[in-house]
Amino acid sequence: MKYKVYCLLNNNKSFVIFIYSLIIANVLALILASYDAIYIEFKNGFKTFEIFSIIVFTIEYLLRLWSSNVVLESSDLVKENRFSFFFSTLGIIDLVSILPFYLPFIFPFDFRIVRILRLFRLLRIFKLGRYSKALKTISQVLKDTKSELLITVFIAFVLLIFSSTFMYYVEHDVQPSNFASIGHSLWWAVATLTTVGYGDVYPITPIGKLLSAIIALIGIGFVALPTGILSSAFIERLQNNKTIKVDQCGCPHCGRVINK
Amino acid sequence: MKYKVYCLLNNNKSFVIFIYSLIIANVLALILASYDAIYIEFKNGFKTFEIFSIIVFTIEYLLRLWSSNVVLESSDLVKENRFSFFFSTLGIIDLVSILPFYLPFIFPFDFRIVRILRLFRLLRIFKLGRYSKALKTISQVLKDTKSELLITVFIAFVLLIFSSTFMYYVEHDVQPSNFASIGHSLWWAVATLTTVGYGDVYPITPIGKLLSAIIALIGIGFVALPTGILSSAFIERLQNNKTIKVDQCGCPHCGRVINK
Amino acid sequence: MKYKVYCLLNNNKSFVIFIYSLIIANVLALILASYDAIYIEFKNGFKTFEIFSIIVFTIEYLLRLWSSNVVLESSDLVKENRFSFFFSTLGIIDLVSILPFYLPFIFPFDFRIVRILRLFRLLRIFKLGRYSKALKTISQVLKDTKSELLITVFIAFVLLIFSSTFMYYVEHDVQPSNFASIGHSLWWAVATLTTVGYGDVYPITPIGKLLSAIIALIGIGFVALPTGILSSAFIERLQNNKTIKVDQCGCPHCGRVINK
Amino acid sequence: MKYKVYCLLNNNKSFVIFIYSLIIANVLALILASYDAIYIEFKNGFKTFEIFSIIVFTIEYLLRLWSSNVVLESSDLVKENRFSFFFSTLGIIDLVSILPFYLPFIFPFDFRIVRILRLFRLLRIFKLGRYSKALKTISQVLKDTKSELLITVFIAFVLLIFSSTFMYYVEHDVQPSNFASIGHSLWWAVATLTTVGYGDVYPITPIGKLLSAIIALIGIGFVALPTGILSSAFIERLQNNKTIKVDQCGCPHCGRVINK
Repeated sequence: MKYKVYCLLNNNKSFVIFIYSLIIANVLALILASYDAIYIEFKNGFKTFEIFSIIVFTIEYLLRLWSSNVVLESSDLVKENRFSFFFSTLGIIDLVSILPFYLPFIFPFDFRIVRILRLFRLLRIFKLGRYSKALKTISQVLKDTKSELLITVFIAFVLLIFSSTFMYYVEHDVQPSNFASIGHSLWWAVATLTTVGYGDVYPITPIGKLLSAIIALIGIGFVALPTGILSSAFIERLQNNKTIKVDQCGCPHCGRVINK
Repeated sequence: MKYKVYCLLNNNKSFVIFIYSLIIANVLALILASYDAIYIEFKNGFKTFEIFSIIVFTIEYLLRLWSSNVVLESSDLVKENRFSFFFSTLGIIDLVSILPFYLPFIFPFDFRIVRILRLFRLLRIFKLGRYSKALKTISQVLKDTKSELLITVFIAFVLLIFSSTFMYYVEHDVQPSNFASIGHSLWWAVATLTTVGYGDVYPITPIGKLLSAIIALIGIGFVALPTGILSSAFIERLQNNKTIKVDQCGCPHCGRVINK
Repeated sequence: MKYKVYCLLNNNKSFVIFIYSLIIANVLALILASYDAIYIEFKNGFKTFEIFSIIVFTIEYLLRLWSSNVVLESSDLVKENRFSFFFSTLGIIDLVSILPFYLPFIFPFDFRIVRILRLFRLLRIFKLGRYSKALKTISQVLKDTKSELLITVFIAFVLLIFSSTFMYYVEHDVQPSNFASIGHSLWWAVATLTTVGYGDVYPITPIGKLLSAIIALIGIGFVALPTGILSSAFIERLQNNKTIKVDQCGCPHCGRVINK
Repeated sequence: MKYKVYCLLNNNKSFVIFIYSLIIANVLALILASYDAIYIEFKNGFKTFEIFSIIVFTIEYLLRLWSSNVVLESSDLVKENRFSFFFSTLGIIDLVSILPFYLPFIFPFDFRIVRILRLFRLLRIFKLGRYSKALKTISQVLKDTKSELLITVFIAFVLLIFSSTFMYYVEHDVQPSNFASIGHSLWWAVATLTTVGYGDVYPITPIGKLLSAIIALIGIGFVALPTGILSSAFIERLQNNKTIKVDQCGCPHCGRVINK
């Protein structure tokens, strides 16, 4: 019985499609409801749909909680129990996406924003087949290069604070509103280093422009550096995978297989 | 006879150059006709040129259709028949680029825009020589990394919707026109994540600026990630090509295979 | 005694955390003090905190100077003496971050900006464990590719000057204020080549727009080129590290060296 | 005698530094002269300096022309004769940078702009030592990936024309001045695809924004693709260089060297 429910939730194709469709419909409803004209027109429709969704999601969550400690004989996964699902990332996302409906008095602010978290339930899709392998590669590469990427982020951070402090002292007097504080200056620094360049804040003094040009040019380096790091990690991983398969060659002298 | 027509269409250098020149002239005519002053001046010239082009393209299309089932004894391609050309990508592009002229009553809207599809006929150029090999490499690499790139696009998509929803709730009250809905907010999110930064929409609240800065910094990662993925795939392909040729070689002196 | 002080300064966890916290607090204080409202409110607080910080940093600096010539028997580092610390990058940063407080009469301008240099003291954090290795990899890669990166920078520089001179002659007559001189034009050139695009300066003549489009497209190449250079250097380094360990191995069965 | 002049021009350190300094001074003079205030002040100074420069460059050019057919016994370069220098890239740049002064009646437009071409004479610096090797690597990589990069540029070009035509039909009615023609639309397309985003032209209709978002996202791909191509080419070149040195290993069976 429990096993059947587990299979229904995780493997039954039409049920899975129904849940994903409902999540996407929820996200679309949230986007549409943000248009004032549409919201006023279909106010009751949105409310009914929200109540319907919350009932479905709640039942699904409770069933998942109940069925999560089923023992799968044909799998090599570790025996999961109820609490492991409750504390798993996916379980918490599932809970968070339904909880706000029941606890409007605990969360005093507008709970509609929390509904967007249902979007993250879509990430469950990556558990399937070949996407699972690709996601594993990406996350493994990010883990491999964590130290290098963190250093890049840290240096970028130091650079941002340094350049925005410098810029504050240079531009504050001529643009007191745009560079009102180092905090305002940081906004300029981020827009420049990431090469977004909204154009709401930019230096007008020659020294400020020179600094801005330097930061923008360094910004190219801050695209190049993490890209180079990630590239090399992707290549290393690909070659490691191949090495395991290919490199079990025999010794040319005695013929026996060498485990490298 | 049929074989001669086939050769004329595909291998005769002056004919091929004539067709490509006509396509480019069509595109230029379309661009020039969009300038009101030029269009009024040379109205009849544009019309005559369009009729001339459509006659040439129609004859060319019909000849291609008729000659496409020729059997090429000296090639290792599969025997193509009329319908295979009719349903091939190139055949559909050819048809689409002439059809609107004959069916203005079926397509009720201004058919001039469809003429730009003739531009895609230029892509036929990549069937030639060494470009064919380079294009094959690029398309193969894109196929190899489809899963990883799709995941990147999907995560980018989730991030865009999430950040624009969040931004809508943060900025809607202070900028009711720029962040009128989550749809408007998405426009900001795309401009920020891709680091385009037109500057027509940008946050003005401190929380909005913080979120914007985070999205812009993540945007660098979304350049770095696909680049890393593509780089590694290009390298793998290059090395595979070499491996096939080089790796299973025998010693040139004693003839025995060397297991590397 | 000297050895104890050395260990306290460099290895005592709580002391190191205290110093880093104080540096971060200093940077935060500098940022907060730039907000006029906050500065007026807590003027005395900021002054007291600055004096407290400067006392701590001065004592720490003097202790570091005194203890830097300790002989570490268990390390393979070269014997450091007092002067080596005084002239080391970290020593100079330490000195510069406290000196301005004592010499306001030598530096006639507002010495507050120099305090931001304390931020660079945080870079000392990379001396620790695995970050040290990652930083070494990054700096080694930058050193390996110095020639190639310098050429890229030089070509970018020539391109910037050339395009801004050209743009000056093209746009000066129609936009006399935005393109008042080649210097003003350079500001546009940097914003375009780095794809920042603030939008304060942009061409309006057709020739200017054409040139701008070309520079922007070349800008993509100037992201791609250093990225490719850095990627290959990262990969080479990774493979060198592996090669040293793996490649000169003997057959584990018969002991003879295998020439791969 | 001729040999001495050749050595003086190419190898004499102080002469080379003098010529480079003069070129840089020329470029600086050109930049400074573009500031109206400075130009009026030092009008005669600029003229004198220009005449002095032109005399030096003319003498240098004539000496180079005369001495270029010297036979260098200790070098493995092919015997260069006068005409080879005259038609070499460097020779043409040298000529072009002095010619406009003598032929103001042939070039009817303001010849000052041509003086900026003297800047390119600085590229001669890359002929020296280790920069020569790095430049060779970069140019070799660009040659290796010519086909792939050209395809990328061509697809980008087709995409630019297609999207700007589409955008013209979508936005022309609501923004008749910004999207006055497909030419105007192209300006938007380049700014978006290269992620420059000046912000002078942007879509305001929902369909236009959707198209713009797609182009901006594709723009990331157009950074990633050439980067991936260049990365792999750099890596291949590095590994080829190593292969030549390392892979001349002996056959494990018979011991003789294998030329792979």
